[in-house]
Amino acid sequence: MKRYEALADEIAASILSGVLRTGDRLPSVRQTSAARTISASTVFKAYYLLEARGLIRARERSGYFVAADPAPRPQPLEASSQPDTQSIAVTVGERVFSILRATMKRDVVPLGSAFPSPSLFPLQRLARVMASTVQKLDPRASVDYLDQGNVPLRRQIALRYLIDGLPVHADEIVITNGAMEALNLCLAAVTQPGDAVVIESPTFYAALQALERRGLQAIEVPTHPREGIELSALAAVLERHRPRACWLMTNFQNPLGSLMPDAKKRELVELLARHETPMIEDDVYAELYFGERRPVPAKAYDRHGLVMHCSSFSKCLAPGYRIGWAAPGRFAQKVARLKLGASLTASVPAEATLCAYLEKAGYDKHLRQLRLVLSTQRDAMLGAIARHFPPGTRATRPDGGYFLWVELGPGIDAIDIHHKALALGITVAPGPIFSLRGDFGHCLRLNYGHPWDARMEAALATLGSLVAAAT
Amino acid sequence: MKRYEALADEIAASILSGVLRTGDRLPSVRQTSAARTISASTVFKAYYLLEARGLIRARERSGYFVAADPAPRPQPLEASSQPDTQSIAVTVGERVFSILRATMKRDVVPLGSAFPSPSLFPLQRLARVMASTVQKLDPRASVDYLDQGNVPLRRQIALRYLIDGLPVHADEIVITNGAMEALNLCLAAVTQPGDAVVIESPTFYAALQALERRGLQAIEVPTHPREGIELSALAAVLERHRPRACWLMTNFQNPLGSLMPDAKKRELVELLARHETPMIEDDVYAELYFGERRPVPAKAYDRHGLVMHCSSFSKCLAPGYRIGWAAPGRFAQKVARLKLGASLTASVPAEATLCAYLEKAGYDKHLRQLRLVLSTQRDAMLGAIARHFPPGTRATRPDGGYFLWVELGPGIDAIDIHHKALALGITVAPGPIFSLRGDFGHCLRLNYGHPWDARMEAALATLGSLVAAAT
Repeated sequence: MKRYEALADEIAASILSGVLRTGDRLPSVRQTSAARTISASTVFKAYYLLEARGLIRARERSGYFVAADPAPRPQPLEASSQPDTQSIAVTVGERVFSILRATMKRDVVPLGSAFPSPSLFPLQRLARVMASTVQKLDPRASVDYLDQGNVPLRRQIALRYLIDGLPVHADEIVITNGAMEALNLCLAAVTQPGDAVVIESPTFYAALQALERRGLQAIEVPTHPREGIELSALAAVLERHRPRACWLMTNFQNPLGSLMPDAKKRELVELLARHETPMIEDDVYAELYFGERRPVPAKAYDRHGLVMHCSSFSKCLAPGYRIGWAAPGRFAQKVARLKLGASLTASVPAEATLCAYLEKAGYDKHLRQLRLVLSTQRDAMLGAIARHFPPGTRATRPDGGYFLWVELGPGIDAIDIHHKALALGITVAPGPIFSLRGDFGHCLRLNYGHPWDARMEAALATLGSLVAAAT
Repeated sequence: MKRYEALADEIAASILSGVLRTGDRLPSVRQTSAARTISASTVFKAYYLLEARGLIRARERSGYFVAADPAPRPQPLEASSQPDTQSIAVTVGERVFSILRATMKRDVVPLGSAFPSPSLFPLQRLARVMASTVQKLDPRASVDYLDQGNVPLRRQIALRYLIDGLPVHADEIVITNGAMEALNLCLAAVTQPGDAVVIESPTFYAALQALERRGLQAIEVPTHPREGIELSALAAVLERHRPRACWLMTNFQNPLGSLMPDAKKRELVELLARHETPMIEDDVYAELYFGERRPVPAKAYDRHGLVMHCSSFSKCLAPGYRIGWAAPGRFAQKVARLKLGASLTASVPAEATLCAYLEKAGYDKHLRQLRLVLSTQRDAMLGAIARHFPPGTRATRPDGGYFLWVELGPGIDAIDIHHKALALGITVAPGPIFSLRGDFGHCLRLNYGHPWDARMEAALATLGSLVAAAT
């Protein structure tokens, strides 16, 4: 633990135990710095962290004070979704595109964005690694790794699987243009147009779009906001519909933020194995855990090569480099060939750069900082929701990733909130874009992957008043 | 024209006019350098060029001599192919993959390769541009250009269209992971599984694979070795089969090297417009022309937005960077959305680097050198075929690109030649992989995109003797 984190924790304990009370003034940065012989910047960082957690507030020119309600939180979401589990052809409306387009503007508050802030990533460091890497690159590298991508990078990825106890060999790994391409290729490897595929409810809209492009049917299965897809419902669907594949996110699901417990993952994999059903596992957020250790993917329990694990560096290290991968189990060769046909290789300079970065072992240090920032921002956003949204609002409290799912009071129209918020320069991701039939009309996905500041707090206050007005 | 090129041309003229005769010894490099007050390296370059053109030969320790037959050439190919023009489901056999895998090894003579030598490209210069570009890159660039790719790069590409008189707006251009992805996306934009698509005969095997992946039927149309697809045959197929699209290469077709004349391109576009049939134009070799000017694509004559033009920087500037694009006419928005769903964006550092390189205007200088090298190597390979292959061998003499198509005597099995050559460390691309039904059993595609040296000459001699033995 860093010095400033230790200091923040110590002060937090004093507040939570009642030693420091609402309205108490904290010692100034200069006093604390002198008293403890630590640098002023360490004290600043600790105070910033406490502020982001909602425990203290800064008042202009008068210092820091213990906040009124040190840890307000919205009510948790407890109930699983209840989608219609009939198979249905996927048609994603125009609305998704117009909503996505709105979130791409630079000048909006990006609560509806699918991306975390680029400021969270070591882009300058990566640029320096790239500068030195490409200038040493063997010209033949441009056509060397046509098979499944840069071999040393695949070894680095295999090494990270190994740390989690997954014996994924570098030969199984296919480097792709980001996880999106990996997911598409895995889907193409195990389905034909017209086949049915199981998805979570709610599910990431890009999965819906991928199913639509391939002409697939989809079956939405009830999903618990903390623990992921309901296995009894899934078992019934497997019996009744004989779907050709499942597309699931076991770790920090988008949009719920749910994390499937290990025992449930094992059960899931065994259930699918009994039905010989391949599973496409979208696992792009696993590195962004807030707990003690990285959650293993469902693939960890796979003994039949049925789990096709997909991930990338886009959400945890290098957005824009477009380097992802699939570890497609028994379908590896098929996916490798589909990759060759789809776009040959990933970008060679990007592959080589990420490989060099991983070899130098700065990755874990970066990840520790990133997780701390994201978990702090999660708490800040939950605090703001509790302060600004009307009673009855529920929200998930994810243990990783950068999305949370908010359920507004019944009858509130999330699409309407989206339009009104957009007019005020704030984006949100309304619930209906995460389902086949426009369910979740009173839900929002909010992104806490951007720095918590006064603008963000104000945006949450604005959203809260829009919701209150609609109640 | 460079000094060494002028010198080479002057000596070539003396040889061809008979002033210098077979066996005559050329002045030594030192003599020529002193007599003309030019550097020895300039003289060396001129002699190398003459040697590559087959006009002179070096004899160890005794200097350069006028070659026996200054410009031998194989007989040209004159007749169009005569494929079965029935529509057929596409099934690409395992053989293509095993042949492709063989060409990827580093230690073989890569006559069967689909790629030119990496040594032909300014990879060091690009690496320096990349080093300075990525270190200045705005972090927000990583998520800025989700729509259709880096905007300034799209403007640079639009500028190059403009030079050829094509008013392609940057808004029409969709940046992709190489031309392969662009071609796939265009195909997906205008076809559904089961549709029929027109292709050339022979055609690039990657087109066959793309059609197979999408579950399409294909119709092979007779194609002339110099002038491309036969319009009368195409017209009949359009009437009879109502195909949903055409996938054609008008400039330096792979594998023939054919170049469709401008008037024929205009006629082609008008014919397709009458049938409302979209054309996917694979134009990755256009920059590698040996004539006076870059040939325009068929898209230049398109007034209905039906031509979807696809190209890339992989074959003319930056192999491995994986930056290509589509200018899909009226289908631009559809292709842009398919691109977003397929893999979001291309690699952001690669896009920014190519943009910076193009802005600095070193591109045309590089291209001039590249064209000179390739045309010289084409002549050297044609000379070697004439010297080493049995009489009756025919070959195309492309005016661009880096492939030529060789027709061996009747009854010679190109697949057999492939296996025997591979055992001797030489790859070739046998004719049958370029067709649906395994036609072109006595043809080879040879790649002249690698430096012409003694190893290459020896490989051609070996191939020639394998063919002679099989005759």
